[in-house]
Amino acid sequence: MSDLPPPDLAPVEVLVCVKCLREAEMPENGIRPGTALHAEIAKHEMPANVTLKAVECLSNCSSGCSVAVRGGDKRWTYVYGNFMEGRDAELVVDGITKYAATADGLVPWRERSDHFRKNCIARIPPQEF
Amino acid sequence: MSDLPPPDLAPVEVLVCVKCLREAEMPENGIRPGTALHAEIAKHEMPANVTLKAVECLSNCSSGCSVAVRGGDKRWTYVYGNFMEGRDAELVVDGITKYAATADGLVPWRERSDHFRKNCIARIPPQEF
Repeated sequence: MSDLPPPDLAPVEVLVCVKCLREAEMPENGIRPGTALHAEIAKHEMPANVTLKAVECLSNCSSGCSVAVRGGDKRWTYVYGNFMEGRDAELVVDGITKYAATADGLVPWRERSDHFRKNCIARIPPQEF
Repeated sequence: MSDLPPPDLAPVEVLVCVKCLREAEMPENGIRPGTALHAEIAKHEMPANVTLKAVECLSNCSSGCSVAVRGGDKRWTYVYGNFMEGRDAELVVDGITKYAATADGLVPWRERSDHFRKNCIARIPPQEF
């Protein structure tokens, strides 16, 4: 089977909780940390097979801000946490770009950023496993 | 098995990490806590539309044992944690039974057990949202 072409890579969704307050009070500027993070990520270029979506509450409030990533029936789904607005948009994009380049969502450990290694909140197996 | 579910409810998968050691050493009896929990859940009756699966590492080791539940494109996916073998199998089955009876995976707050309320590690929106 080694002569088969590389598998088509399914579309990827990046889900950012825009309601995240990190269990704290609303900031004085009235902008939720999750909303700010989402807006900052949106300014970055992402691979063509990636769509950024705003979602409400990934139930990881104590370790927010939170980002989930999924991509079709063959990839693992991940939830990552502890992202900071004003700091981590590029870090998110880096991790998502690596994820989107895989067929199964499993980025080799050596390629993962320190933040992604240490702040994986949970992962869920592919639909087909 | 119990009564057949309404025909419009998608099948549900309960994914139990059977590798879970709760970040501790292997118990003297050589049985991982996750393996024991899975076996205990398997002894219980579940709704007809629920399948129990053994999986490896849901990346929630520090708050294990861990159980994920999902069910088709219209339901939210949840990861719950801090389950104890020898104690919580019935609690898991109760929560899963309520989840499996919903179309969207959203069990009303008042119906959730205290453990499910307090130990939701993360949730992921339906594919169709």
